Amino acid sequence: MVIDPPYLIFLGDVPDALAAKTGLGIVDWRPDWCLGQMRLEGCQADAGIPDLSIEAAAKAGVRTMVVGAANAGGVLPAHWIASIVAALDAGIAVATGLHVRLASIPEIRDAAARSGAKLHDVRFSDHRFDTGKGTRRPGLRCLTVGTDCSVGKKYTALALEREMRARGMNADFRATGQTGVFISGRGAAIDAVAADFISGAVEWIAPAAEPDHWDLVEGQGSLFHPSFAGVTLGLLHGAQADAFVVCHEPTRTTMRGVKHKLPSIREVIDMTIACGRLTNPAIACTGISVNTQKLGEAEAKTLLEGLASEYGVPATDPIRFGVSELVDRLETIGKKA
Amino acid sequence: MVIDPPYLIFLGDVPDALAAKTGLGIVDWRPDWCLGQMRLEGCQADAGIPDLSIEAAAKAGVRTMVVGAANAGGVLPAHWIASIVAALDAGIAVATGLHVRLASIPEIRDAAARSGAKLHDVRFSDHRFDTGKGTRRPGLRCLTVGTDCSVGKKYTALALEREMRARGMNADFRATGQTGVFISGRGAAIDAVAADFISGAVEWIAPAAEPDHWDLVEGQGSLFHPSFAGVTLGLLHGAQADAFVVCHEPTRTTMRGVKHKLPSIREVIDMTIACGRLTNPAIACTGISVNTQKLGEAEAKTLLEGLASEYGVPATDPIRFGVSELVDRLETIGKKA
Repeated sequence: MVIDPPYLIFLGDVPDALAAKTGLGIVDWRPDWCLGQMRLEGCQADAGIPDLSIEAAAKAGVRTMVVGAANAGGVLPAHWIASIVAALDAGIAVATGLHVRLASIPEIRDAAARSGAKLHDVRFSDHRFDTGKGTRRPGLRCLTVGTDCSVGKKYTALALEREMRARGMNADFRATGQTGVFISGRGAAIDAVAADFISGAVEWIAPAAEPDHWDLVEGQGSLFHPSFAGVTLGLLHGAQADAFVVCHEPTRTTMRGVKHKLPSIREVIDMTIACGRLTNPAIACTGISVNTQKLGEAEAKTLLEGLASEYGVPATDPIRFGVSELVDRLETIGKKA
Repeated sequence: MVIDPPYLIFLGDVPDALAAKTGLGIVDWRPDWCLGQMRLEGCQADAGIPDLSIEAAAKAGVRTMVVGAANAGGVLPAHWIASIVAALDAGIAVATGLHVRLASIPEIRDAAARSGAKLHDVRFSDHRFDTGKGTRRPGLRCLTVGTDCSVGKKYTALALEREMRARGMNADFRATGQTGVFISGRGAAIDAVAADFISGAVEWIAPAAEPDHWDLVEGQGSLFHPSFAGVTLGLLHGAQADAFVVCHEPTRTTMRGVKHKLPSIREVIDMTIACGRLTNPAIACTGISVNTQKLGEAEAKTLLEGLASEYGVPATDPIRFGVSELVDRLETIGKKA
C-alpha cells in the first residue's frame, strides 16, 4: 500500500485528542507532509496546523486526505461522508483505518469512480503478497520487539529513524500497522494479512537495500502474547533483524487484553534470539526502550541504569532521554557489516 | 465453517489420482459419509465408491457435493460448472477448496440464490473469529507438529482419532486445513485467517470439552519454516496442547519451498515446549511419527527404534506400523488428568 503525501488530516468532530491519536501522530512524525487539518464543528482536537477547506487543500497540492480520527467501533459517522465525497470530487485520494471499507458506502464509491481518486483502506489488505522465502537480503534491519502490545514499539522505531537521519545515516522507518502506514506513506497492517503471508509481507515492507541502509521495522505484539504471538514471529522471520530493541512498560502487570503476566526482558531477549536466528544468525539485542511515563525522573533513571547494567545494552526512555545511545550501537553494527 | 454430510465426491475429469487427492482422502477417512462419486468423461481417478448422478445423489440423501479434485492453479474448469449448477438446483450444497469463490461465477451464484443451497469456499475465511484469549479450557488436546510442511501431520492426527475411537475413547480430529475441513465437516483453513486471529480461530476449532475428551488437532507448517512459522506458533498457542507428536520425513534435506535445512527433532521438541508452555505449562512430547515410505522395512524399523531410544517416546510410521503406542501414551496422560 502506497499513500501519496502531502496530506490533509481530517479530524472530524471527535470529542477529545485521544480519538484523534492517529492524526496527531502523523503530524508529530511527518510535519512536512501535513499541509493542514480539516475539523468539523465541535471538534475537540487540534493538531496545531492550519485549518484548510477542501478547496484550499487542493490548491495547496494535497494529494491525500487521511481520516486521522476514530470513533468507538471504527465505523464511519454518516456526517463525515460529505467531507470525504468533497475531497474525492476535488481529486484528492482518501485513506482511513476504519473497520468498514470506504467503497462499501455508495456515495463514496460513486465519487471515487467519478473523479478517479484513490481509496485506501489501511485495515484491509488487498495486496497479494508472496510467502516469505527467508533468503538473506542486503541492507541492515532493526526491529522493535516488546514484552507486550502497546509498549512503544512504533514510537521507538520512529525515534531511531529521526536520530539516525539527524546523523546523516541512511535510514527508513518501515510500517507494519495502520498509523505507521500513514506516517511512512507505505507498508501494510500485517495483522490483517492472511496468516500464510505474514513473513512474506514483511519481506516486501522491508526490501533489499544498500549495504549501509537501516530499516527501522515497527514491531507488533509479543512472542509471549497468547493472542498475537504468531504475528510477532512471522514479523521477526520476515524482518531478518540484525538488531532488535526490547520495548517495555514497567508498571504493567498483565498483558493487554488477557490475564497472562508479562514476560521478563530476559525471556524476550532469549526467545527473540532463539527464533530470529532462523533467518539471521547474527541477530543481537542492541537496547532496551522503556516507557517511564508513570515514574518520577529519578526513579526512571535508576530503573534504566539498572537495566543497562543487567543486560549489557543501553536502556532509555526515547521520549524523556532520547535514543542517542541506541543509535550508537546500531552505528557500531553498521561499521562491522 | 460447518459442512453437512453425507457427501457426493466430485472428481471431474482429472488426469490422475494425485489431482483427486482431496476427494480420495475424504473417502479414506470418512467412508460412511461418502455416498458416491461423480466423474466426468475421461476421469482417470476412482475413489472406489458408487458413481451417482446428481438425481440419484439427491434421492440417496446427499447434502453436500465436495469438489474433491483440483487442476493447476486452483481455478474451476468451465466444463465443471454445469455439474455444480445441477447439484445446487437439486438442493445440494457445494463445497470447494479452489482459489476462486464459487459465488464469483454468475451461473453458480444464480443457482445458489434460486435453490437456497449453500456454497462453501473452504480456502476463504469469512467467519469473524475473536482474538485468542489463552484462557485454559477443559478437555485434552494433542497437536501434531513437524520438522517441515507436508510431513504427515494431518494423517497422524486422523490415525490417532481412528485408533482412539476404536478403543472407545472420546476423541475428535480437529481440522485446520482445507482437506481436513472436508474430512471433519467443520474447522477452518487457518492459513487463510487474518494474522491477528490465528490463535483465536484455533480456540474456536478445538473448543472447551469434557475432561476426558481428546481433540486431535491438525498441525500446520513448522516453527522452523521461514514462510509459515507464524501460523504454527498461533496454532500452538490456540491449541493449548497437553501433548504433541513430532512428524518427520527422514529423507528430506531442505524445507519445502525454501533453502533452509530441516531442524532436528530435538530442536522441534525444545522449541515447541518453550513456546507452548505459555498457554499450557504441562505440554509434553508424547511421540514421533515418521513417514518411512522411501525406506525399506528393516531400515524403517531401525530408524524408529533409534528415535524411540534417543527421545524416550514411542516412534512409529502410522501407515506401516499403526499408532497404538502413541495412543497408549495419550491414555496415560488422560488418566493423570
